[in-house]
Amino acid sequence: MTVQRIKRIQLMLLDVDGVLTSGEIIYNDSGEQIKIFSVKDGLGIRLLKEAGIQVGIITGRKGKALQHRCNNLGIELIFDGIRDKSEALERISTQTGISLEAMAFVGDDLPDLPAMNRVGLSIAVGDAAEAVRKAAHITTKAPGGKGAVREVCETILKTQGRWDELIQRLFNG
Amino acid sequence: MTVQRIKRIQLMLLDVDGVLTSGEIIYNDSGEQIKIFSVKDGLGIRLLKEAGIQVGIITGRKGKALQHRCNNLGIELIFDGIRDKSEALERISTQTGISLEAMAFVGDDLPDLPAMNRVGLSIAVGDAAEAVRKAAHITTKAPGGKGAVREVCETILKTQGRWDELIQRLFNG
Amino acid sequence: MTVQRIKRIQLMLLDVDGVLTSGEIIYNDSGEQIKIFSVKDGLGIRLLKEAGIQVGIITGRKGKALQHRCNNLGIELIFDGIRDKSEALERISTQTGISLEAMAFVGDDLPDLPAMNRVGLSIAVGDAAEAVRKAAHITTKAPGGKGAVREVCETILKTQGRWDELIQRLFNG
Amino acid sequence: MTVQRIKRIQLMLLDVDGVLTSGEIIYNDSGEQIKIFSVKDGLGIRLLKEAGIQVGIITGRKGKALQHRCNNLGIELIFDGIRDKSEALERISTQTGISLEAMAFVGDDLPDLPAMNRVGLSIAVGDAAEAVRKAAHITTKAPGGKGAVREVCETILKTQGRWDELIQRLFNG
Repeated sequence: MTVQRIKRIQLMLLDVDGVLTSGEIIYNDSGEQIKIFSVKDGLGIRLLKEAGIQVGIITGRKGKALQHRCNNLGIELIFDGIRDKSEALERISTQTGISLEAMAFVGDDLPDLPAMNRVGLSIAVGDAAEAVRKAAHITTKAPGGKGAVREVCETILKTQGRWDELIQRLFNG
Repeated sequence: MTVQRIKRIQLMLLDVDGVLTSGEIIYNDSGEQIKIFSVKDGLGIRLLKEAGIQVGIITGRKGKALQHRCNNLGIELIFDGIRDKSEALERISTQTGISLEAMAFVGDDLPDLPAMNRVGLSIAVGDAAEAVRKAAHITTKAPGGKGAVREVCETILKTQGRWDELIQRLFNG
Repeated sequence: MTVQRIKRIQLMLLDVDGVLTSGEIIYNDSGEQIKIFSVKDGLGIRLLKEAGIQVGIITGRKGKALQHRCNNLGIELIFDGIRDKSEALERISTQTGISLEAMAFVGDDLPDLPAMNRVGLSIAVGDAAEAVRKAAHITTKAPGGKGAVREVCETILKTQGRWDELIQRLFNG
Repeated sequence: MTVQRIKRIQLMLLDVDGVLTSGEIIYNDSGEQIKIFSVKDGLGIRLLKEAGIQVGIITGRKGKALQHRCNNLGIELIFDGIRDKSEALERISTQTGISLEAMAFVGDDLPDLPAMNRVGLSIAVGDAAEAVRKAAHITTKAPGGKGAVREVCETILKTQGRWDELIQRLFNG
């Protein structure tokens, strides 16, 4: 059952383009890239980490803009330039000591399928490719880059029964 | 009554990401940030100041792009890198001589709640987190970065009976 | 009648923020500005000029990004940093020899009102402030920066009976 | 019949502004341009090439941002600064040995019409100018820059009977 899958999650893995962003690939004339993230997703990630759940990045691309955002959010598990996201899961499991069953993977497009099919909880963003939405345990309402990751974070924290205490402690103290 | 709260306002305090912007956190490869503001909000802020109502910024982040926009709009009350927005209210009150009851705070997400719960008038942007919309005296129709602040400025000026004279004097003279 | 007003137009004057752009004021950390124009508007402007109708810019702001776009489109009548757009109309009339009656002005917000009230044809973009839409002879369907200027160009060319010949000559040759 | 036209395609030609982007022309103060592409389109192009169908660019503008995206996608057939897109088709046919009948052209606005009228398969993006949509064999559901090119790639691959094998081999291996 999906609720049981969510309760086991100790690590949330995120694709970048189309998940943490809306899938815009932005270049200037110098070949520099620009990436547009969401402040709402950022708070979700902070809350997840506050609750002791780890957050990692798996992406096929490489780029410094992503690094700057990860520094800003305190995300240290960054696997970029990854050709085979499914294969990377083993390395992440070895490095973190977390089993694939306790990992969630949030994806949006076909290259995410192999990894999504192996983790304990697979999540498609609202505007993911049809095959990805069909393969996922959960599809978010929000599209990628527009609150999908925030929605995932809230779902995990609420299902694990951590949300109310966290919000009370941090924001209504 | 909300009308009475609006009539007392002498200072409008604004969160930045998600309020003056639509919540996009934009990095380039150099780690520079880009911020997208609204020209419509800008006119609202100018009109509010023209009517003698002060405008200030409270944000958890720091960034030069914000400074450039504030220079452009003549906003001098900038409190950035603020961890506890509620605590900052005291300092702002001391600095400006304006009581918390005469302050409005426009917010979009959970970290804004403690400050919103203390000021005379709390306003949520149209796409604020549900808990923020529930806690606010007013929720704007427009989402953050897309006219929410303009809407707040017009509401304050119209409720205080200043709008018609101001528009007549400045634009139909 | 509005049709008669359109038929007399020899010069189209455009506000920038909210008309040629969607009203986004974009800064980076260096204080540089970025402006987002529409390729569709660009073609409209080229067609208008091809038909012998002049195109000019009146804006309260200043910025090099605008200059680059104007160079690209061959727009030479640029009046920027203008505090009083209505007063600028006289100078433009003297410089071009075109009467105010033969000018169209496309605006989106309250500072455009005085100029709009003086020219032969006033046009509001689809998402203009309510008072601007009410004051205008025409309101476009498209919002500013998303095809509003293209719509104005097509309306002028079609009403003046130039559209079919132009399209036939340039694109179906 | 359109299905027969699609089955013959060996080369997909793309306009840039309004097709690979949503038509935003973005300048900064230095006159540098910024271009926003779609990661979803990128995967479509990769899949098309994987199936042995060539991909080329025809655009009236010039710019380095486009070059960076093309490098990233492995697109080598780039015809930029083209005044007459129809005339360019001959050169492309000579260079590639592919007949105009085996070419698809994806366009969005009037300058694309002459080329679209000569190739075997003409495709309009969902938000193309009305005359372009009327002239095209196919109009995509997605607008330019928001998945239109991905939709074209999937349509070609599915109609040619290559899609399932490709997805199976690459992503469910």
